[in-house]
Amino acid sequence: MSTYDDQNIFAKILRGEIPCHKVFENDDAIVFMDIMPQSEGHSLVVPKAASRNLLDADPAVLARVIPVVQKITVAAKTAFQSDGVKVVQFNEAPAGQSVFHLHFHVIPVYEGVPLRPHSGEMADHGELAALAEKLKAAL
Amino acid sequence: MSTYDDQNIFAKILRGEIPCHKVFENDDAIVFMDIMPQSEGHSLVVPKAASRNLLDADPAVLARVIPVVQKITVAAKTAFQSDGVKVVQFNEAPAGQSVFHLHFHVIPVYEGVPLRPHSGEMADHGELAALAEKLKAAL
Repeated sequence: MSTYDDQNIFAKILRGEIPCHKVFENDDAIVFMDIMPQSEGHSLVVPKAASRNLLDADPAVLARVIPVVQKITVAAKTAFQSDGVKVVQFNEAPAGQSVFHLHFHVIPVYEGVPLRPHSGEMADHGELAALAEKLKAAL
Repeated sequence: MSTYDDQNIFAKILRGEIPCHKVFENDDAIVFMDIMPQSEGHSLVVPKAASRNLLDADPAVLARVIPVVQKITVAAKTAFQSDGVKVVQFNEAPAGQSVFHLHFHVIPVYEGVPLRPHSGEMADHGELAALAEKLKAAL
């Protein structure tokens, strides 16, 4: 198995070296907006502990992070009045993983609106900031 | 929000009223092969506690079930020598949910092999039984 590389973009966000549209933070995880959203309100739940993905994660970390995934899923449905929510987690590049620090996608789904491709187009930062505020308000 | 209906197919499997190709079981969850697999080795991690999906689940149950999801993800990569693994969890029908008892899809991904559609074709039961044995052996 490949090893964890601390130069990945989420590690840099966790160290505060690059900015993000933050929604939530506790001792175990940080939540911010995906800058290439597959739908309006697509956010990411990122454990603070270093692991490449689920394959090398500490189960104790997972147990503390999954309630955050749930909290964000519930908030996303409320904040964006979405018709459903997809939670997706990719392990290794062939499965769609593009950043090699464990993360969970929380993707609101709207009836009749197909999801945009993963790692597609960059969103407007003003819009992302507004969506982050909306999600924060629903927590 | 809609309420939990205990006549869903996974509740029936949990009660032993209908069979499944079981891979794993502990106090918190049961794991069995998806009968409409999106790829070879696609399995489902199903908490024993009743909830419709992530939106109404008990966080304490989630904390105990996510290590099972991890265990199955690791085993699937080994058992099927897949190139990656997708973990997917759908909330409500517009997001793709078709059985309204919380479950996590663990879907092995093979380089160059596109996933089949969700809720597609029924797999051969002999094949599913063999895949379940393979996955069990990798636990």
